[in-house]
Amino acid sequence: MRLALIGVGLIGGSFAKALRAAGKVDAVVGFDSQVEALARAVELGVIDERATSAEKAVEQANLIMIATPVGSTRDILRAIAPHLQGAAVVTDVGSTKASVITEARRELGAAFERFVPGHPIAGREHSGIEHADATLFRDKMFISTPVAQTKAGAVHEVEALWREVGCRVERMTPEEHDNVFAAVSHLPHLLAFALVAQIAADPDAGRKFALAGAGFHDFTRIAASSPVLWSDVCVANRGALSDELRQHRDLLGELQRAIDECDTQTLQSVFSRARGALA
Amino acid sequence: MRLALIGVGLIGGSFAKALRAAGKVDAVVGFDSQVEALARAVELGVIDERATSAEKAVEQANLIMIATPVGSTRDILRAIAPHLQGAAVVTDVGSTKASVITEARRELGAAFERFVPGHPIAGREHSGIEHADATLFRDKMFISTPVAQTKAGAVHEVEALWREVGCRVERMTPEEHDNVFAAVSHLPHLLAFALVAQIAADPDAGRKFALAGAGFHDFTRIAASSPVLWSDVCVANRGALSDELRQHRDLLGELQRAIDECDTQTLQSVFSRARGALA
Repeated sequence: MRLALIGVGLIGGSFAKALRAAGKVDAVVGFDSQVEALARAVELGVIDERATSAEKAVEQANLIMIATPVGSTRDILRAIAPHLQGAAVVTDVGSTKASVITEARRELGAAFERFVPGHPIAGREHSGIEHADATLFRDKMFISTPVAQTKAGAVHEVEALWREVGCRVERMTPEEHDNVFAAVSHLPHLLAFALVAQIAADPDAGRKFALAGAGFHDFTRIAASSPVLWSDVCVANRGALSDELRQHRDLLGELQRAIDECDTQTLQSVFSRARGALA
Repeated sequence: MRLALIGVGLIGGSFAKALRAAGKVDAVVGFDSQVEALARAVELGVIDERATSAEKAVEQANLIMIATPVGSTRDILRAIAPHLQGAAVVTDVGSTKASVITEARRELGAAFERFVPGHPIAGREHSGIEHADATLFRDKMFISTPVAQTKAGAVHEVEALWREVGCRVERMTPEEHDNVFAAVSHLPHLLAFALVAQIAADPDAGRKFALAGAGFHDFTRIAASSPVLWSDVCVANRGALSDELRQHRDLLGELQRAIDECDTQTLQSVFSRARGALA
């Protein structure tokens, strides 16, 4: 099997390494708009060949994995569409699914039926090909979000590969996916970024960060994620995320009132609801 | 040295265990309003004797450690004040300092000069005497916030004990302490509680929690903290916390606008400021 990897970062690189370790891939050709990352991917043996464009990368590939920030997906789909082999399967790992599917439907033409949208629930605080790891997906979840037109054979092929690299596979609709991850991933990232940015803007920021304890470091770990990747996610999933954020701001307004009025009953009731859910 | 431990939870219990391990204490008498915790503290060997009241606990003690949620501190100070030995030193571990000092000044009378306000930056996601650990404070920070009237001898005694159990000691004013920890501890706890409470209120909560990845679990770990302890902290430090929360809500309002208008430039700028601060 010849894999074209578009985007040689943490997730794409780890997928290629894991497939190679599982003996599922004969050759990996890579493309990335960042030439240093591409060169490093060759040095690290993650890819066998570097292509000079996404179009070139896909020409003889059986499987095309798009592993770029979701904001780039549309341009990539448009570029590769005319160059796909007749039976090639295209898949992605974007953190949002409905927007990617809309773009794929528009750009891929007949090949849309071989586009398998997906999202592995795995990551690291550090991005980049340097951190690619063949074991990244072990015991993680892969969310598969095929639509009515998606060919069953293509879905099975992609899901089988994710199982091969260690994932449990769960299917859901793109809308379900986007609602769930707006709440448990996109909003927490936004809040962590916002809190750290707020402290960073303080004249006393250095001292504040130096005095922060373990709880703060756990809470803000995800704020070390890629700004480009996450701003793309926020915009691509703006429907669901905007709703969650609005709800969150309403709740924070209620908590502000409770603090200002020394209303410990409201505070304890909200905090207990949270703690109870984690128990 | 005879230690009176008022509040036999994670922090107080760990302090008593660590002092005992360091050979710094001859006897520990404990009191807690929760009788089960008190009984368990005897069973676990954390305290040698249980007192029937805070007053009784302090009668022959050289050092009184108040390790309860800060909302209880005032009543405890009032109760113990008439029963303190002439040279007894009183200290605490409250997460807010200005409010505790105001209460101590009012309740302790002449003994206020032997009240050493402090705050160890250490904790666990699980509270309670069961999790008390003699090594909890190793390589952690202890913030000492004496005021002008605090006797230097009392400050040195308390700081020396915290060094003995493994802490680095840093002094700051109570106001400085409260401002710093509003930003790096109290606000993150509030946000984590709020996010988890929001998801818990969703009809699809079970599924959402089940699909959450490692980033979510890191982010929300502190929402498993004690609701009573943290609602006390929020109210005790409401001045500084309310300011931080208001700033945070303003920033979230700006991010909401950016999401709704697909303004990736603003999103990336805020996210990059955060990531840069963590690098």
